[in-house]
Amino acid sequence: MKLIGYFRSSAAYRVRIALNLKGVAVEHASRHLRRGEQKSPDYAALNPQKLVPALVLDSGEVLTQSLAILEYLEETYPQPPLLPREPVERARVRALALIPTADIHPIQNLRVMGYLREKFGQTEESAFSWSRHWIETGFDAYEATIANDPRTGAFSHGDAPTMADLCLIPQVFNAARFKVDMKNYPTIQRIYETCMQLPAFDAAQPAKQPDAEA
Amino acid sequence: MKLIGYFRSSAAYRVRIALNLKGVAVEHASRHLRRGEQKSPDYAALNPQKLVPALVLDSGEVLTQSLAILEYLEETYPQPPLLPREPVERARVRALALIPTADIHPIQNLRVMGYLREKFGQTEESAFSWSRHWIETGFDAYEATIANDPRTGAFSHGDAPTMADLCLIPQVFNAARFKVDMKNYPTIQRIYETCMQLPAFDAAQPAKQPDAEA
Repeated sequence: MKLIGYFRSSAAYRVRIALNLKGVAVEHASRHLRRGEQKSPDYAALNPQKLVPALVLDSGEVLTQSLAILEYLEETYPQPPLLPREPVERARVRALALIPTADIHPIQNLRVMGYLREKFGQTEESAFSWSRHWIETGFDAYEATIANDPRTGAFSHGDAPTMADLCLIPQVFNAARFKVDMKNYPTIQRIYETCMQLPAFDAAQPAKQPDAEA
Repeated sequence: MKLIGYFRSSAAYRVRIALNLKGVAVEHASRHLRRGEQKSPDYAALNPQKLVPALVLDSGEVLTQSLAILEYLEETYPQPPLLPREPVERARVRALALIPTADIHPIQNLRVMGYLREKFGQTEESAFSWSRHWIETGFDAYEATIANDPRTGAFSHGDAPTMADLCLIPQVFNAARFKVDMKNYPTIQRIYETCMQLPAFDAAQPAKQPDAEA
């Protein structure tokens, strides 16, 4: 299998953690998002959505959308599980995973920030505030959801990493770039520190990828 | 069970279709998003994310995030299935479902449009163009993904509705409000027309909800 990603892409980072946790070795390739390489005709032929990540299977099938890829990996490499067993608990983990995936990251990713600057004439500073606002709104929701729920453990759900953590941690990395004050999110911060002690999370972080830049 | 939604919420509409297809009767309640009723303390106590929909189970458990609710319904009411059986095919359906869910709707929902007007001083017209831009970008991706794939049938995947259609159709309704020209999306338009012939999709449409307004 080959994962086509980008070192700083939160969505690619989610998949890298899953592959590491499940011990699945893949070839890595990169599309430079700031240079728009994901829009090139050869990549569009592979993934018409022109986004990363894409997971190219040995059969040639191309899987897209990070959460769909996580669910695929869970179904095909079930150990260790990234979802609990009971439907209600699975729903909790998936709902948490969707906070960064649907309610934060899409609103403040590169292409949206580009529109704000180019079409709305926003400054770097106001685009920065925009991004921070949506991260904080989403982290408010995440923190409020997990802070007083007895199902929260060392990780977002219980004492082993789940899809929720795989989606949360890349967003915490992103939040640091936008100077979000993590003191307001003590439970998220605690889980982040726990996750980063695990090699699967650490090795997948942006700065440790072959295509990383300062 | 009780579904707390809002007639015009795309996310609530997705869940209404699933409940109809699976023949699950629930009580319906509404939070008026334009009046900000989803931010009231009693609702925040129920769903700290302050978004709709929320599905309140008979046990009192509250499920949030439409896609997580769809997966829960699929696991607990498996007939008729809204996902195919094979992992690669399931990944295709989930990836399609995520295009409206993660890549379109979050960027152009009420709260984001509000920020554009209030903080960036954008006019109704420029906020309108913004919304249309992201719908078109997402529909370009969706159309390109399904147009020439032999797995596309009467519906987005094969000849029965899947989660992909449940997420697509509410976005088509939303697109009409933003004057998106559906001639550019012939496959999406064809699937939309097919879906709307099914009572499960039709009865769930915004205008047919008890809380509907002109």
